[in-house]
Amino acid sequence: MPITANNPDRKSWLQVPENSDFPIQNIPFGVFLTKEHVVTIGTRIGNYAIDLGALQQLSYFEGIELTDDMFMQDTLNDFISDGKKTWRLVRNRIADIFDQNNPELRDNTSHRDVVIFNIEDVEMQLPILIGDYTDFYSSKEHATNVGKMFRDPDNALLPNWVHIPVGYHGRSSTIIPSGIPVHRPMGQTLPNGETQPVFGPSRLVDFELETAFITTDANIMGENIPIEEAEEYIFGMVLLNDWSARDIQKWEYVPLGPFLAKNFASSISPWIVTLDALEPFRTSSPVQEPKPLAYLQQEGDHAFDINLEVTIAPENVAPTLLSKSNFKYMYWTMSQQLTHHTVNGCRVNSGDMMGSGTISGSTPDSFGSMLELTWGGKNPITMKDGTERKFINDGDTVTMTGYCQNDLVRIGFGEVSSKLLPPFVRK
Amino acid sequence: MPITANNPDRKSWLQVPENSDFPIQNIPFGVFLTKEHVVTIGTRIGNYAIDLGALQQLSYFEGIELTDDMFMQDTLNDFISDGKKTWRLVRNRIADIFDQNNPELRDNTSHRDVVIFNIEDVEMQLPILIGDYTDFYSSKEHATNVGKMFRDPDNALLPNWVHIPVGYHGRSSTIIPSGIPVHRPMGQTLPNGETQPVFGPSRLVDFELETAFITTDANIMGENIPIEEAEEYIFGMVLLNDWSARDIQKWEYVPLGPFLAKNFASSISPWIVTLDALEPFRTSSPVQEPKPLAYLQQEGDHAFDINLEVTIAPENVAPTLLSKSNFKYMYWTMSQQLTHHTVNGCRVNSGDMMGSGTISGSTPDSFGSMLELTWGGKNPITMKDGTERKFINDGDTVTMTGYCQNDLVRIGFGEVSSKLLPPFVRK
Repeated sequence: MPITANNPDRKSWLQVPENSDFPIQNIPFGVFLTKEHVVTIGTRIGNYAIDLGALQQLSYFEGIELTDDMFMQDTLNDFISDGKKTWRLVRNRIADIFDQNNPELRDNTSHRDVVIFNIEDVEMQLPILIGDYTDFYSSKEHATNVGKMFRDPDNALLPNWVHIPVGYHGRSSTIIPSGIPVHRPMGQTLPNGETQPVFGPSRLVDFELETAFITTDANIMGENIPIEEAEEYIFGMVLLNDWSARDIQKWEYVPLGPFLAKNFASSISPWIVTLDALEPFRTSSPVQEPKPLAYLQQEGDHAFDINLEVTIAPENVAPTLLSKSNFKYMYWTMSQQLTHHTVNGCRVNSGDMMGSGTISGSTPDSFGSMLELTWGGKNPITMKDGTERKFINDGDTVTMTGYCQNDLVRIGFGEVSSKLLPPFVRK
Repeated sequence: MPITANNPDRKSWLQVPENSDFPIQNIPFGVFLTKEHVVTIGTRIGNYAIDLGALQQLSYFEGIELTDDMFMQDTLNDFISDGKKTWRLVRNRIADIFDQNNPELRDNTSHRDVVIFNIEDVEMQLPILIGDYTDFYSSKEHATNVGKMFRDPDNALLPNWVHIPVGYHGRSSTIIPSGIPVHRPMGQTLPNGETQPVFGPSRLVDFELETAFITTDANIMGENIPIEEAEEYIFGMVLLNDWSARDIQKWEYVPLGPFLAKNFASSISPWIVTLDALEPFRTSSPVQEPKPLAYLQQEGDHAFDINLEVTIAPENVAPTLLSKSNFKYMYWTMSQQLTHHTVNGCRVNSGDMMGSGTISGSTPDSFGSMLELTWGGKNPITMKDGTERKFINDGDTVTMTGYCQNDLVRIGFGEVSSKLLPPFVRK
């Protein structure tokens, strides 16, 4: 089925600012709360939030097989369960409804009043109920940088890394949407040169610049997903700030991996950009040498050219650009990650989320964490107010943005932005 | 509020076989499917499954604040959310209803017909929707044994182990109830002495003898649970077989911990035995030396004396007893685990599950995995049919049982039993 929603020549009757992340070619999916405290599934064009539940009630999705309340829900899980054909039909239909040449909704003021909101008037929610969250570690540059600092500079990359899209399980209960502040975590750390740990606020809170993909029901338990089919089960992508406490991580992570250093918060951008919308931005991945085992080999382009940026803004201070990276730098692709994840029969459900791992490029200005940007605190970064940062201070707001751009269209993610607060005080 | 359900002198009008795990003093909670394909929440006395949904419809819970459909659900999550006071009221009421001196239900045949089933006539389900699954690593003996084999015999225990209840996130989507068979996983392994990995069926499939506890909503994000309060948030316990593929684990687990070696299956016993029912079996834990940091220090007895056994039965062969262990051997308690898990503000929800880690004792016949029992395959175990096992063969059924016993009462878990099948063949 053609993805007519991607037609770059189409214009909407809704006004879209220049360089908007959300032209009519994007049509992402999210969940929002209206001023009237109604939760609904929606999409976004320009600076308008569009209530898909209302559109469905007004019969705009006639002819597409959907349960009656498909878009009147507080998560996208059921819609994602319906599979790629339905996602495509719905996106194509939304593009038609908002096409400048289609008068149906354009000229119906009473319908427009209940369907279209200013983006400032809605409150974005977590778009999915995340059953399981996996985080990969798929940037060779990041894994090498961390290996140099935490382990052995001469053997930074462990032998398994080039054979396995290394990943681990994260915590679903603390995944939050952009805008929700995060408290500096408390925890155990081992001061340098000491043998006895101490308890207190983490002193090394960091961001990790990542993307994540959201899956549909992929398999039954026991069954694997062949690599040729993997992309069929990927609904779309979000930006992910995988908050990390480096001092807690260093002390706790052997032998079972990071735990409390990560599970205090992971922030995501609220609009899921579909893999269909990203189709024009497919590109090649870094060459994989040695060649991966047969089940991980694939033909064609499975990376996506997504520009990524991170800024930090102290309170009442303009943001400072810290890093410019790109999703295409990742060594392992999303299809390789999903194939590997299921090769042992691990079940993947609708709404599961899989993080890319920190996305670092090869130059120091493209590193995806403070750990790497300041090289463990050795090279502090100066903010616009003259203060220095080795890691993140209380009151700092970390913002990540991401977009794809070619001559014809720009498809963006908006942002994931969250402020770091001092440790939580129990009442 | 007194736990009158625990009165050891009480007898039920339902017949309970001698040495049953489920006397009227147990009253565990589970979810089952009746012959009529109705899913309901239930309890068990002797070899009878009791439909709590039917009991509620017949007004047997009058006076206890419960939503109308509390027990007519396919998971216990909502009931668990109601908190310890409600759990206790309901257990006390069930004990009253089935007390031999209470004629109300005993003498009402039409009620009995819709409430009570033979245990063979119902199909046990997963009792909870597990949002997040964490697995700890809290047996000093197990951690030492694994450290000796996988790392350094002279420094088997890593320095953080005596300070931190080490744990990591597991996969919720592949947690299954007793009785569901498990396929041998496929995966990458590194043959001894080689530098290139190979792909194929795991050759070293193992069990891990564990228990797990189920939590209620414990905190908001950012908030920690003080150790004095931790047990308030523990609903109950199950037996857990944390299936493991040792060859996959060895190759993949650095630096982020076990992943595909574990997430192909974790089997649990279907009846959740409440912490209240286990109250008479509180006992002391091993002395913790060095003393843990203040937030992990606790007074009183927080271990439980639970006898555990593991058998393996090849197809059509009687089971061989492999291990006799006890939950009380664990170095870190459940309250220490939950307190540590939330000390950084990690949110814990109703239905989250936390595994103990493999429960090994100090003698070789009390080890909780084949890895330890056969010492990495060096000392095979002979089955009743004369065949030898270094790890688990296709067709073998692994069964774990657990019970508490004193002079007055026996409170048991039943079993978690599952068969290992050959690798899954995709149709």
